[in-house]
Amino acid sequence: MPRVVDHDERRRTLALAACAVIARSGLAGATMRDVAAEAGCTTGMVSHYFADKDQLLVAALGAATSAVAQRITRTAAERPGDLVAVLAESLPLDDVRRREWRVWTAFWGAAVGNPALAREHAARYARWRGGLATVLAEEPWAGAVHEDAAETVMTAVDGIGLHAVFEPQLWPAERQLAHLNRVVEALKR
Amino acid sequence: MPRVVDHDERRRTLALAACAVIARSGLAGATMRDVAAEAGCTTGMVSHYFADKDQLLVAALGAATSAVAQRITRTAAERPGDLVAVLAESLPLDDVRRREWRVWTAFWGAAVGNPALAREHAARYARWRGGLATVLAEEPWAGAVHEDAAETVMTAVDGIGLHAVFEPQLWPAERQLAHLNRVVEALKR
Repeated sequence: MPRVVDHDERRRTLALAACAVIARSGLAGATMRDVAAEAGCTTGMVSHYFADKDQLLVAALGAATSAVAQRITRTAAERPGDLVAVLAESLPLDDVRRREWRVWTAFWGAAVGNPALAREHAARYARWRGGLATVLAEEPWAGAVHEDAAETVMTAVDGIGLHAVFEPQLWPAERQLAHLNRVVEALKR
Repeated sequence: MPRVVDHDERRRTLALAACAVIARSGLAGATMRDVAAEAGCTTGMVSHYFADKDQLLVAALGAATSAVAQRITRTAAERPGDLVAVLAESLPLDDVRRREWRVWTAFWGAAVGNPALAREHAARYARWRGGLATVLAEEPWAGAVHEDAAETVMTAVDGIGLHAVFEPQLWPAERQLAHLNRVVEALKR
């Protein structure tokens, strides 16, 4: 009987390897060979699944986004009503989340002047916006929230994350959380 | 008498051309040849001034940052005490500022995994932080401002700008200004 190849599993493994390599070396510095070495497979295997660097980048971004979404779902279930805890899952508070953030930042840079990547970004943000609007509507203080609350939170998270990713020494986890907390408290007033 | 070449002027012209090309085509899509065509000179001339793409990118970023700084200085003089108007000079409210933002965003992406560019970023942000702290200290409501006010403003501007650069249809100038205004008002409470 021929060995069954689990293509989804392999694709996921390669996407995670791409995350690690892009976070470490940046997009310009990342090569198919590095990703292969990280995944413990051949370069041919990587290029079999991903035709070019853009595809690899999108896959890496997908892996990072799935990881965030899983954590958010879990935290939302474990700590209902704790909006800051939920949002904190998408801030670069530890090594894992810093790595995801470095992939996001590399992706944004690559999306400038690249319509396909810019559409990918817009699609992901539309989902985030929708999810966040649902979470906000369930807050006990939802009535007080202005219509742009979801955007306020999203731009705050992205602003804090961007600063923290480049100046981690200025932005320890406590400071990121304090800023996020201030933004959420301001929403309630 | 030999013709005197104004190297600073030429460097500035090339940096502005690099801004235009990077904003249009992204960093991956920008070539020395495009920059030469934009500046109306030879490719050899571009590579005489900038040895590689990173140097070109830093020069483009410098040109964009200088333009913002000049506008901020002028607006601060013309509208003293109008913090929102001053900060608005660094949001992507029109074509000129959107172009600058696209260069910044491309730069951030390139700075991931590139220590030299990351240092360049940190140096520029240190100057912005310093300038902003001075402006905030002069506000009539300065006493009410918490110590992280400058960071709150900076992260808000970067978050709004990042969203607006990728989804301009969702972020017309009025919406960016309304968000910025809300952040500044929240500082005063």
